[in-house]
Amino acid sequence: MENNYFSQRRTVRSYSEKPISEETLKSIIEQAMRAPTTGNMQLYSVVVTRDEEMKKRLAPTHFNQPTVMGCQMMLTICADFNRFVRWCEVSNATPGYDNFQSFISATLDATMFAQQIVTIAEMQGIGTCYLGTVTYNAPQIAEILNLPKRVIPIACITMGYPNNDTTQCERLPLEAIFHSETYHECSDEEIKELYRAKDDFEPNQKFIKENNKQTLAQVFTDVRYTKQANETFSKIFLDFIIQQGFTMPD
Amino acid sequence: MENNYFSQRRTVRSYSEKPISEETLKSIIEQAMRAPTTGNMQLYSVVVTRDEEMKKRLAPTHFNQPTVMGCQMMLTICADFNRFVRWCEVSNATPGYDNFQSFISATLDATMFAQQIVTIAEMQGIGTCYLGTVTYNAPQIAEILNLPKRVIPIACITMGYPNNDTTQCERLPLEAIFHSETYHECSDEEIKELYRAKDDFEPNQKFIKENNKQTLAQVFTDVRYTKQANETFSKIFLDFIIQQGFTMPD
Repeated sequence: MENNYFSQRRTVRSYSEKPISEETLKSIIEQAMRAPTTGNMQLYSVVVTRDEEMKKRLAPTHFNQPTVMGCQMMLTICADFNRFVRWCEVSNATPGYDNFQSFISATLDATMFAQQIVTIAEMQGIGTCYLGTVTYNAPQIAEILNLPKRVIPIACITMGYPNNDTTQCERLPLEAIFHSETYHECSDEEIKELYRAKDDFEPNQKFIKENNKQTLAQVFTDVRYTKQANETFSKIFLDFIIQQGFTMPD
Repeated sequence: MENNYFSQRRTVRSYSEKPISEETLKSIIEQAMRAPTTGNMQLYSVVVTRDEEMKKRLAPTHFNQPTVMGCQMMLTICADFNRFVRWCEVSNATPGYDNFQSFISATLDATMFAQQIVTIAEMQGIGTCYLGTVTYNAPQIAEILNLPKRVIPIACITMGYPNNDTTQCERLPLEAIFHSETYHECSDEEIKELYRAKDDFEPNQKFIKENNKQTLAQVFTDVRYTKQANETFSKIFLDFIIQQGFTMPD
């Protein structure tokens, strides 16, 4: 049964009108707070968006993906060293968490927590969708959500009961991901073989044509995740992390 | 039933002699590959350690935590842009993923995948433990596991069937984590109240005494996660990320 859920799961972007109750939401969050966390520091927090006006303000930061206005609620999960540092300060302790390693620890904590929320919600029949835009437009999101220093939005999840049935997208074969004892670096032929089913997958072939490209990889490099956009958003995100109080080493 | 698992789960560091079969392992990984991933790029891989000699070589990189030598297997989950870039290169596409934003995307992908592995394994009765040391000693781990450029170890998980029953550690109340619409910045009194049960928790009181400290927060700042160690490991990890091919913006 659990096996069935994990191998059948898929992202859901379109939701019905059925609301998610406050009780259900809080029960999901409370269970997810049992996710593993670095040294039991729980370096995360979650901001819940349900208000229509707040959704409207946040929508452009997610490039107006329809799932934002169409969801029952949106969760912005943050890497949060603010609460922990505040606790140190009221406990006669001198915190040393204004650094890159602390940012990484909080990022891992927040992501494990986010993924736990997704699993718990989905196992109750709720659909979820991560929005990768959250790290691109972190400064604007932080301003709208009133995030203080040492708090970085890391994962954004829209939620609602599924509107209709969706199909699973393809995944690579196990051999692509799995390495025994040491990392196996593939030959060009092996790489082609691992990606063959993905390249040939009919919806991906359609995707190539729609974008006037020759290969699926070109859709990624030239359209979806371009070097220029990645570099722009790298600078914005790094500057934001520093502005929020995490100093980078020399 | 599922609810019960999520709210009851706890980390397990000590394991019985019962092996985890190859079939069980591969089934867990294969199901976890259905975890959400940025643009379906699956920017992760996993290196499985079962060989005793490999465990011995890795143990010092995890500060010889006994769970390393005592586990049935150890999984090192990596943020991996190597495979994707190799695919671009054999597909007549020019990748632009040697940047900070791409490192972040792969880190989130790897962490969601790692957490999915943990949940699937634990729901089958297998105990797991994350080792936070993985980002501290990433360069040595990469050398031992033969990780190529664009591959960064992000999460390390020891696994095995539990040796004995363990108790749950404490967690903060929901109010500490949960923010509605905007982030609520606490007063000093509110912070103290949120951490009161944690401060008073008997094992934590014992922990304070053992470390000759006045407050629990001091155990974190002065013993467990010191400013000096954080800064040292920040520099090592950032240098390693750059060495592995992710350029930082100016």
